[in-house]
Amino acid sequence: MAEEFPVVGLDDGARQAVELLAERRLPGLIVTDERGRPHSILPASQVVRFLVPRYVQDDPSLARVIDESLSDRVADRLAGATVRKLLPPEHVELPVVNHDDTLLEIAAIMARLRCPLVAVVKGDQILGAITASRLLQLAVTPH
Amino acid sequence: MAEEFPVVGLDDGARQAVELLAERRLPGLIVTDERGRPHSILPASQVVRFLVPRYVQDDPSLARVIDESLSDRVADRLAGATVRKLLPPEHVELPVVNHDDTLLEIAAIMARLRCPLVAVVKGDQILGAITASRLLQLAVTPH
Repeated sequence: MAEEFPVVGLDDGARQAVELLAERRLPGLIVTDERGRPHSILPASQVVRFLVPRYVQDDPSLARVIDESLSDRVADRLAGATVRKLLPPEHVELPVVNHDDTLLEIAAIMARLRCPLVAVVKGDQILGAITASRLLQLAVTPH
Repeated sequence: MAEEFPVVGLDDGARQAVELLAERRLPGLIVTDERGRPHSILPASQVVRFLVPRYVQDDPSLARVIDESLSDRVADRLAGATVRKLLPPEHVELPVVNHDDTLLEIAAIMARLRCPLVAVVKGDQILGAITASRLLQLAVTPH
């Protein structure tokens, strides 16, 4: 049920994490703490926010006039940074479900927390993750 | 730059839209109005919310005791429904960018609106979409 999902640590390199998101076209990564426990989610959209200067977020039309490309921003902002620095100021909770929960139980948690991704654990171990579209796939496929 | 992305109309069948999300494992669909213009986004996570009864969202532990599976819910709730019925009560805006916008301009709009998906248009025509991870891919790939 759970699918293998890339996991990065809080102190891993930011550049490496962003390349993982980009190469595998993921909506987000699971972030673990120093002890390998689920910590939070790093959504791809949060990385985009991290790359865009605050004043350009406030007035996107300024993007047209500044002499810097998004690739330049990636190089500048990610050099030497860790995953911890990429995370949003407000903690994005990583919902956790048990490997033997039913689809409806997982859907209930996803619906309540309005999140598109949950980690699946067995004891202390992360087995993988389930996205909203994966859950729908499991529900619409005849068994 | 834009990638082909499935588009559904407000009055298309809900079941068909959910199967599209499921089969192609998409984070969301672009929804168009009666005249084919961009209307909104239908996120996969919103479909999950639609399927889970309100009282189970309020208390996910109830999912364990009710005698209904997520597949049953899909069959019950989606029969005869349209995409319009699946949409969240609060309109999820579909940001639109022009086909000749730069990556930084698109990133600025994504960052401002905190959305993981934008539609790319040329005049009145939807050319496709760009997700946050696609944007990161374009930014980290050497040109």
